[in-house]
Amino acid sequence: MPKTDPVDLTAALVRCASVTPEEGGALTLLHGVLEEAGFTCTRVDRGDVSNLFARWGAKGHDRTFGFNGHTDVVPLGNPDAWSMPPFGAEIKDGMLYGRGSTDMKSAVAAFVAAAVDFVQDTPPDGAVILTITGDEEGDAIDGTMALLDWMETHGEQMRVCLVGEPTCPNTMGEMIKIGRRGSMNAWFTVKGQQGHSAYPHRALNPMPAMARLMDRLASHELDQGTDHFDASTLAVVTIDTGNAATNVIPAETRACINIRFNDIHTGEGLSYWLREEAAKVDTEFGTRTDIKITISGESFLTPPGPLSDLVAKAVEAETGVVPELSTSGGTSDARFVKNHCPVVEFGLVGKTMHAVDERVEVDQIVQLKTIYTRILQEYFAQ
Amino acid sequence: MPKTDPVDLTAALVRCASVTPEEGGALTLLHGVLEEAGFTCTRVDRGDVSNLFARWGAKGHDRTFGFNGHTDVVPLGNPDAWSMPPFGAEIKDGMLYGRGSTDMKSAVAAFVAAAVDFVQDTPPDGAVILTITGDEEGDAIDGTMALLDWMETHGEQMRVCLVGEPTCPNTMGEMIKIGRRGSMNAWFTVKGQQGHSAYPHRALNPMPAMARLMDRLASHELDQGTDHFDASTLAVVTIDTGNAATNVIPAETRACINIRFNDIHTGEGLSYWLREEAAKVDTEFGTRTDIKITISGESFLTPPGPLSDLVAKAVEAETGVVPELSTSGGTSDARFVKNHCPVVEFGLVGKTMHAVDERVEVDQIVQLKTIYTRILQEYFAQ
Repeated sequence: MPKTDPVDLTAALVRCASVTPEEGGALTLLHGVLEEAGFTCTRVDRGDVSNLFARWGAKGHDRTFGFNGHTDVVPLGNPDAWSMPPFGAEIKDGMLYGRGSTDMKSAVAAFVAAAVDFVQDTPPDGAVILTITGDEEGDAIDGTMALLDWMETHGEQMRVCLVGEPTCPNTMGEMIKIGRRGSMNAWFTVKGQQGHSAYPHRALNPMPAMARLMDRLASHELDQGTDHFDASTLAVVTIDTGNAATNVIPAETRACINIRFNDIHTGEGLSYWLREEAAKVDTEFGTRTDIKITISGESFLTPPGPLSDLVAKAVEAETGVVPELSTSGGTSDARFVKNHCPVVEFGLVGKTMHAVDERVEVDQIVQLKTIYTRILQEYFAQ
Repeated sequence: MPKTDPVDLTAALVRCASVTPEEGGALTLLHGVLEEAGFTCTRVDRGDVSNLFARWGAKGHDRTFGFNGHTDVVPLGNPDAWSMPPFGAEIKDGMLYGRGSTDMKSAVAAFVAAAVDFVQDTPPDGAVILTITGDEEGDAIDGTMALLDWMETHGEQMRVCLVGEPTCPNTMGEMIKIGRRGSMNAWFTVKGQQGHSAYPHRALNPMPAMARLMDRLASHELDQGTDHFDASTLAVVTIDTGNAATNVIPAETRACINIRFNDIHTGEGLSYWLREEAAKVDTEFGTRTDIKITISGESFLTPPGPLSDLVAKAVEAETGVVPELSTSGGTSDARFVKNHCPVVEFGLVGKTMHAVDERVEVDQIVQLKTIYTRILQEYFAQ
């Protein structure tokens, strides 16, 4: 039987213009490939988002390996800045170019190709489940969450799951992610009393209170890191007032911060701290500060163990590199999967993700399929 | 001879839609009134601004009393928010309504009426000069400055000058201004390095540096006031970044401050201090801060003496109120006149200046003419 070529499949996926939340033909394409290989496929669409569930083998088997990935991509940025067609999947000097080539159509192609060939070449005593979403780059509400909701309703269960996000900063194989920091945003509106700059005592300027609050938040050390996590970080991302008149003291000013937090913290605990700090500043200045907080995800960890060992050994065997078990970086859908089963993430080098001229080394796609194949072999050999 | 009615003259001026820098017919109207009363008038126009110089009596007389005022007005704001026609000069419940009624067409009308009647009723041994500009509310570059330049060129000299700006906060007669604080604006741009909120160590966030800088500037006590001046003030008027993406650390952020400073300081000294503070913060954070500074005016003082005594006595005689000699408030054209001759300011209650439904008590216009008349009488009686 001819082997499934992960490079061809990556190219075919890149040619689907699946800018989030557009399906762009990508899931339909995979649906066809997987169904032909004997997978039971279900389109799990919710809202304006499309998702694909595929299982080979018996439902409910206690040896069920899962993969998770997404076919939606971020917008192009400035289309004129691209040196290659962004949906062309053209190959030049060993690199395949296109939006989503790195993040993460190549990994989806690699695990689909690995799974299809594996179940046909050496049918295991167990099951393989693929959960592929069209909404990871968007709101991520109707994507992997919808798939997991549907799976719960329908008695579908992965025993472990590998998310194929790009995890390697520079060199193929150097990093596996076993957890992620939590992420939250807080929007502050500090309210005072408008007035004339010449008579500040008749006004209540919200700006000094905002400056004090942001200085305190930004200079506070949240922690020094934990066994598996870097130190938590807080970034003030914007302060805005929009007052063009230099003789006017504005009535209010707004700011937003983003916190990435490790397993010492919870979104709730940090929210409490933020409200306390704002209240202190309000007491000092007489201002009134409103806070709106959105917790994008709590921190989570799949502690080093059988799953990370399995993935790490396969990576080392194929690349010669001993991968670091890391919890660094931004959020991914692993934050949803962790409520379903143990989850780790491994994919290729993510350098050009979201950038203009996003591209992937063709050899890395092939290597990634080989690694995923070895992971499947080892999992079912246990 | 019929007395010149300052209320009719105010109404006629309000009906001229002289939104800065439009002349709107206001100076032409005064030109006619003054010429008929024997004043030598010259239109001193510069750029797109019109100004009027008028002298009664001998040029170069060592007893020459000057008045200064402006006929231009600020824009209407929301025209629909006015309950009376903004250029209608309608009178209701003893109040005359209209843009410029308070700031400062009524005072111009009052000193024109006072001067016209005074020189005709009791021609003094001396001269009266009126300098009336159409650019006080605008850039103020081609207004009183143009008049003073023209006067210097043409050997015209006021010995003292009274500026008719509204000076009384609440009650007619309560305040004479004998100087003004200086005013300056500084625009800061703090530059760092853009990056992803999840990886703050790879970026250089300018926001904490800006917050620290603004907190330090706003909480610094510039001074505690001087004999004739309130404490200097510093108002942060805006901080703006314009970064809508919570996962992005912005490359730069901007802020503006306004300083009103007394005679302890100079614009140059404060500029030096601002640059020093910014440099300290840059050293602490590794940022780079650009500063643009505009000094609108240095502080100045006409120390209490013959001119302020003269005005204060006339005010007390006509109102029964002992006026405070103050240096509070915003800038006025007195900051230019002070280089020409001793200058004080006295006018009516300024509560509604620049506001919607700007209005003036009709009785106050009449009273103001009486006060200005008494000032002329006393000045030339000395």
